[in-house]
Amino acid sequence: MRQLERFSLNHATTKNWPLPQAVAGCVAAGVPGIGLWREEVAAFGLDRTAKLVRDAGLRVTSLCRGGFFGADGWFDDNRHAIDEAATLSAPVLVLVSGGLPAGGRDVDAARRRVADAIGTLVPHASAAGVMLAVEPLHPMFCADRCVVATLGQALDIAERFPPKAVGVVVDTYHIWWDPALFEQIARAAGRISIYQVCDWVVPLPEDMLLGRGHVGDGHIEFAPITDAVRAAGYDGWVEVEIFNQSIWDTPPDQTVATVKSRWPLVGA
Amino acid sequence: MRQLERFSLNHATTKNWPLPQAVAGCVAAGVPGIGLWREEVAAFGLDRTAKLVRDAGLRVTSLCRGGFFGADGWFDDNRHAIDEAATLSAPVLVLVSGGLPAGGRDVDAARRRVADAIGTLVPHASAAGVMLAVEPLHPMFCADRCVVATLGQALDIAERFPPKAVGVVVDTYHIWWDPALFEQIARAAGRISIYQVCDWVVPLPEDMLLGRGHVGDGHIEFAPITDAVRAAGYDGWVEVEIFNQSIWDTPPDQTVATVKSRWPLVGA
Repeated sequence: MRQLERFSLNHATTKNWPLPQAVAGCVAAGVPGIGLWREEVAAFGLDRTAKLVRDAGLRVTSLCRGGFFGADGWFDDNRHAIDEAATLSAPVLVLVSGGLPAGGRDVDAARRRVADAIGTLVPHASAAGVMLAVEPLHPMFCADRCVVATLGQALDIAERFPPKAVGVVVDTYHIWWDPALFEQIARAAGRISIYQVCDWVVPLPEDMLLGRGHVGDGHIEFAPITDAVRAAGYDGWVEVEIFNQSIWDTPPDQTVATVKSRWPLVGA
Repeated sequence: MRQLERFSLNHATTKNWPLPQAVAGCVAAGVPGIGLWREEVAAFGLDRTAKLVRDAGLRVTSLCRGGFFGADGWFDDNRHAIDEAATLSAPVLVLVSGGLPAGGRDVDAARRRVADAIGTLVPHASAAGVMLAVEPLHPMFCADRCVVATLGQALDIAERFPPKAVGVVVDTYHIWWDPALFEQIARAAGRISIYQVCDWVVPLPEDMLLGRGHVGDGHIEFAPITDAVRAAGYDGWVEVEIFNQSIWDTPPDQTVATVKSRWPLVGA
């Protein structure tokens, strides 16, 4: 097995594991990083989570998530998310931009709103030392979750701002299909905030959000993508983030063992 | 209601309607064109279908479908499909290119195979007077149905061949999300083989193939897309093609009435 220095477990992969057990499980498994979610952090307590992770010697590799710029209260909510990331010493806040309003059809307007919204958040994020990471979601989520549908489009937004302020998420699940994948990863040099991996398995389940598989179980060839990410200068954390009901129904320590066993396939 | 000169009902929209009833139903409703599927045509008989449609004064606007270039026997099967289109006087054979092989991960190789396969079919198609139409399918189908995932990619393939030989399908359902949509429709000038419409409704059902909605029921803004298709010089048939179980469970003549009532929203 390759070394785990860059390995991070996104908590969503073992979402039924309460935070203290997840942190202890990472430590026991030699996993040095963890990606956290705001809801879980809030439930356990922000300062308490920060202390828990710090005392365990773990690093918080990202916080999920800000965004949803069409929702009421998005500005304050995103500022809070930035503050939470800073408290957790998470270098990155992942932004899922939100879809169209109910009955809405103007995707161009929604996309302009995303760029404008991010612009309003940049000063606060930069002051807090938190990089905003625009995540392109797979186009099947364009209407209801995220109008940013390609890495190129995420870069079009990020490039309006300084590289340290706004970057992009490279998540294999969302972008593996893109004919412009390697060209856009190269373009992302200096803008990759976090690299996330999981596999594309077919058929997708009824809840499309939960169609992700362990690395190696699906149709994504990871090594060339990881090589391209490395060639773009990214040598940071690689988060394994899998939403899958049957994985959630598996004992979490067993899931971590599986994820570790697949790590060599990532090629990081 | 706008005039129906360019209106075509794709038979898949009323798939439980046997061919004679579908043809009679189109005539009764003043629908001048129909898009056919090979399986239905074969079941009713090729020559018999050709006569049925001709005698009714209908035009076959496209035949679905060739493609699936990874399948055994694809070459002979596609040649047969071309011959069937010619017999039906269908100007266009729609090509769904096929996904990855079971367990396959090399999407680039699969894409190269599509272009090569089409090249082998062009002489026969041109001799038969049938335009091959490369259809980009939504990226959610990339692994299992069609590695051609964007209009730009379909054009990259089509542009290797003469414009009369190989074109593209512009189907709102598959490409509405694309940030490069309007740029690629403009690029498609002279290459648009057929324009198909249906709406994107959320949430998608368990079988993602059946998630399409009547024009006006979802998140797609049709008029600007139709305008762009027109500006690209396309003034041919507009097929309404909807896969949706609840629409299939509706009496077909009622479905045709609904489709007609939504026609003004298409802006054709």
